[in-house]
Amino acid sequence: MKKLYYTYERIHQLINKIALDIKKDNWEPDCIIAISAGGLIPARILRNYINKDIYIVGVKRYINDAITHDVMIKVQWIDDIEKKIHGKKVLLIDEIDDTRITLAYCLKELLRSNPEEIRVAVIHEKIKQKGDIFPKEISKSYVGEVIEDLWVNYPWESLDINEHYRNCQEEK
Amino acid sequence: MKKLYYTYERIHQLINKIALDIKKDNWEPDCIIAISAGGLIPARILRNYINKDIYIVGVKRYINDAITHDVMIKVQWIDDIEKKIHGKKVLLIDEIDDTRITLAYCLKELLRSNPEEIRVAVIHEKIKQKGDIFPKEISKSYVGEVIEDLWVNYPWESLDINEHYRNCQEEK
Repeated sequence: MKKLYYTYERIHQLINKIALDIKKDNWEPDCIIAISAGGLIPARILRNYINKDIYIVGVKRYINDAITHDVMIKVQWIDDIEKKIHGKKVLLIDEIDDTRITLAYCLKELLRSNPEEIRVAVIHEKIKQKGDIFPKEISKSYVGEVIEDLWVNYPWESLDINEHYRNCQEEK
Repeated sequence: MKKLYYTYERIHQLINKIALDIKKDNWEPDCIIAISAGGLIPARILRNYINKDIYIVGVKRYINDAITHDVMIKVQWIDDIEKKIHGKKVLLIDEIDDTRITLAYCLKELLRSNPEEIRVAVIHEKIKQKGDIFPKEISKSYVGEVIEDLWVNYPWESLDINEHYRNCQEEK
């Protein structure tokens, strides 16, 4: 199966593009919420271009064979969340929109605190059958790049960064 | 004034070195706590090598001219913190040990929840007069690289990543 390899510089450029797209829309969030762990690096790079407070929501999917669907576990949530996002414009960021399950879960949970608006940003969106949909309140998402449903290797997932960059070179 | 420029790959290698140093000590944290925003990228890379839950503490320094010292503001803190860190082995990570003020503040705050132990990890430690000291409970810190007291440019702070990489090249 073909795999996609990305350099850190390419990711940085895609985040730069997302920031430009947001500015073109004349939209400015009040805060950035990153889904941990995937959204940590995109969020830090984005703050370069959109200098707002970053909040983190950490989630992991727990696959329970005894039931028919995954269970989401909150590793960390936002303390004092009402004060932070009620009536606010929120940009939720993650690395990839793959099955959409994690994104949809976080969006539904965040909407309970009645933000004014939430928009979504992801480095990559995979063209594939999604396992969930965005809530109807979500009107806009920003995507660095739309890709096929292939295995994606981000640089931060690499145990040997030199080998990863060689794989990026070979892909060209 | 001379400035230091780092590529993402170099940062990744330094985090890899920190992970190896921790393993050499036969030590394994129960969780990683990252100081946001600087610690977000190091924490995500480190989780590659030490696969533990990441919690985030977000702080910013507010400089108030009316008083003689900076005020630290908690942007986000750990929800349900007692359950998460009481009696646990914690690795606190940030990008740089510069004045040590932010690190010392976070360490003191985290110690209030009585972890078993906290160790510190930073990509860079600057040789300079520090503005604060580590609490006596902190016995060990891991450093990617010790550097002079120069201006440091991390890649995630760059508005133009291509220009940043040219500056990295020229420095060699």
